[in-house]
Amino acid sequence: MTSALLTDRYELTMVDAARKSGTADRRSIFEVFARHLPNGRRYGIVAGTGRLLEQLSEFRFGDAELAWLRENEVVDAATLDWLADYRFKGNVWGYREGEVYFPGSPILVVEGTFAEAVVLETLSLSILNYDSAVASAASRMVTAADGRPLAEMGSRRATERGAVAAARAAFVAGFSSTSNLEAGRTWGIPTMGTAAHSFTLLHDSEEDAFRAQVAALGPGTTLLVDTYDVTAAVDLAVRVAGPSLGAVRIDSGDLPGQASAVRKQLDALGAKSTKITVTSDLDEYAIAALQVAPVDSYGVGTSVVTGSGAPTAGMVYKLVARVGDDGDWVSVAKKSAAKLSVGGRKFPVRSLRGGVATSEVLHVEDDPDAPSARADAGRPLLVPLVTDGIADPRYLGAAGTALAREHRAVAVAELPVDAFRLARGEPVIPTVYE
Amino acid sequence: MTSALLTDRYELTMVDAARKSGTADRRSIFEVFARHLPNGRRYGIVAGTGRLLEQLSEFRFGDAELAWLRENEVVDAATLDWLADYRFKGNVWGYREGEVYFPGSPILVVEGTFAEAVVLETLSLSILNYDSAVASAASRMVTAADGRPLAEMGSRRATERGAVAAARAAFVAGFSSTSNLEAGRTWGIPTMGTAAHSFTLLHDSEEDAFRAQVAALGPGTTLLVDTYDVTAAVDLAVRVAGPSLGAVRIDSGDLPGQASAVRKQLDALGAKSTKITVTSDLDEYAIAALQVAPVDSYGVGTSVVTGSGAPTAGMVYKLVARVGDDGDWVSVAKKSAAKLSVGGRKFPVRSLRGGVATSEVLHVEDDPDAPSARADAGRPLLVPLVTDGIADPRYLGAAGTALAREHRAVAVAELPVDAFRLARGEPVIPTVYE
Repeated sequence: MTSALLTDRYELTMVDAARKSGTADRRSIFEVFARHLPNGRRYGIVAGTGRLLEQLSEFRFGDAELAWLRENEVVDAATLDWLADYRFKGNVWGYREGEVYFPGSPILVVEGTFAEAVVLETLSLSILNYDSAVASAASRMVTAADGRPLAEMGSRRATERGAVAAARAAFVAGFSSTSNLEAGRTWGIPTMGTAAHSFTLLHDSEEDAFRAQVAALGPGTTLLVDTYDVTAAVDLAVRVAGPSLGAVRIDSGDLPGQASAVRKQLDALGAKSTKITVTSDLDEYAIAALQVAPVDSYGVGTSVVTGSGAPTAGMVYKLVARVGDDGDWVSVAKKSAAKLSVGGRKFPVRSLRGGVATSEVLHVEDDPDAPSARADAGRPLLVPLVTDGIADPRYLGAAGTALAREHRAVAVAELPVDAFRLARGEPVIPTVYE
Repeated sequence: MTSALLTDRYELTMVDAARKSGTADRRSIFEVFARHLPNGRRYGIVAGTGRLLEQLSEFRFGDAELAWLRENEVVDAATLDWLADYRFKGNVWGYREGEVYFPGSPILVVEGTFAEAVVLETLSLSILNYDSAVASAASRMVTAADGRPLAEMGSRRATERGAVAAARAAFVAGFSSTSNLEAGRTWGIPTMGTAAHSFTLLHDSEEDAFRAQVAALGPGTTLLVDTYDVTAAVDLAVRVAGPSLGAVRIDSGDLPGQASAVRKQLDALGAKSTKITVTSDLDEYAIAALQVAPVDSYGVGTSVVTGSGAPTAGMVYKLVARVGDDGDWVSVAKKSAAKLSVGGRKFPVRSLRGGVATSEVLHVEDDPDAPSARADAGRPLLVPLVTDGIADPRYLGAAGTALAREHRAVAVAELPVDAFRLARGEPVIPTVYE
């Protein structure tokens, strides 16, 4: 299924009108950035880039799409022909997937004709806004968990395809696994999961259910112990699976207290290697509170797939420069109060002192073809993602996803320690336009 | 692309284990319900049912999915064979799409063998949770707008496919149109949109841009007037398009004040029929505040596609009854504190007095095959959606979507007036288990 109609109607009507006015082929630069970080966060994590590159290559108007556009008189016949031949042949630079970002960071820079670049607005933002919202929340959970593994299990609280994106974004941000099978198949993310309460209720007794699960999945499985009475279930679990039982899962109740009690009980039963995983409505704050408890791993659902209070990163896709009839570049920006944007292409670098980030410096250039002379005064943040319409294959597929996960760890390690405070605050480093 | 792997791994491992323990074929009833309405809302709106019925028919494990499950040893060979033949052949009842719901309302009831019904948990919840979250928020915006048309334009703040679902859910809840082209094509929703700020910035002057747009789209188009200076742009817009200009759009600033000033200006210019549409970060509260201003229509983005603070409806999919070895039905429920569920199948009716809803009555039956003798004491809320695996075609496609939109209007009209208060509160009618 093509991604071409995952597009706001006004993009195609703009192409139509610009073609008629002779401006459609003006070379243009659009930048994707967020005006602010949501919820008083200290930093954001870029995610979705790899997904976007893959969907960009499928952005084609096929016969079915063209027929519908014709019937609905969205654009004229000449523009339909143009759409039929559409292939993005321009260039895209961007922050690497997994990179840290701040307000104003140009996380994606699209250069092409106005017409070929403007039609990518909705698709680019849909992907980057959601995936970055999830990754930004997930990254806080990962640092709060301080090495304890996190599993993403929120598919049921996201749209059916969005759930796959959420699993991927959480993995990029450092989660270890997902419950979502399609995310495992498409992106190579380890999948996990054993049984729900319904499995216990299906059987005539909790013992029947535990025996059935251990028979099928082996004693290394994770048994869910809170369907009836946790203490009784933990006793039963060890009796059924033996002391080599893999883990018990607690999905309700007073988690810190319960985890401590269950740990003592497991140890007393000789199941010293049996792990405890908890999965009840966790977010970064609950995880932080559980760090003192003897919990071995966390499962996170709703809060991670909904961005923990910020389900979109609020990024926008703005024209910052275009050529005029004389062939020269013109920096452009709208003047509306409160939605002010800065015209001109930005060349971003992260300034570091002793390996620690001190500021996000955006070098603004009126001539976007001229690389900024000052861009070497820090770590350059843009990499080529698409060159003359061809995506860099390193960023695609499961390998690209794993690479993004590695890069996030490196980029986060550069942040000052204040970045990891969960309380509301300002971005941990300032954004400076130069 | 099949929907079969849009599934949490534990559903397949439960099928595997239940097949081994001989319980997989026990007839079972799962219900979908929400424990509470989010954010102190007074009612919720069911949406997504039509989408779910369509995806249910595509829920097939093809060769690619089976190969991946085999390689990853998710289930054993015999279960792979069972999955290869999987077709849902059971029955589904549910609240009609567009229906009002309350805490505990069994908005979907799935009856089949445990194995065939449990594998639908994630897909059902992914769709119903998101679509109902959007529709529940959208319905409040529709009542706040009190007859003024609302356009959904939030695709960029939702995942790329979720955006199509959001457009549909908003339409079910009473929105008039969407910017999303795929939603127009797939679900028959009217699409709208003319131009963004980038179109003005592309041209050498605002006048060039307005002339280009009017040349392409006619004077009935909507011109965006806040790129530079609103007053100057409104003058220019009427000069370029004439007094038959369709509308002006304001996307920033102090909207009530600006709308009043623009209305006076348009009237003074003789453009008395030119409409004003506003589109800047609106939610139900901003819409309510704008009702005193001379605004003709609203465009809503972020807030509607993210459920205005509640991006998921928080619904769960719970086993409530299953047969035992003796063939008799057994009501089941887990006992965990705070996540208590009520065992037994519910037959819901909405009690009415003088046409106004007074309570949501859930008749609980230990024998789910026996229709409740008391179910006629109000408006019965369940309708058959799938019978022996076949979906009722009335609820599918664009026709089903339009039907849901009509039903929402009827169902909302039954609510007491307190339902339409935007402030936080309790559900407007109580849920009563009988």
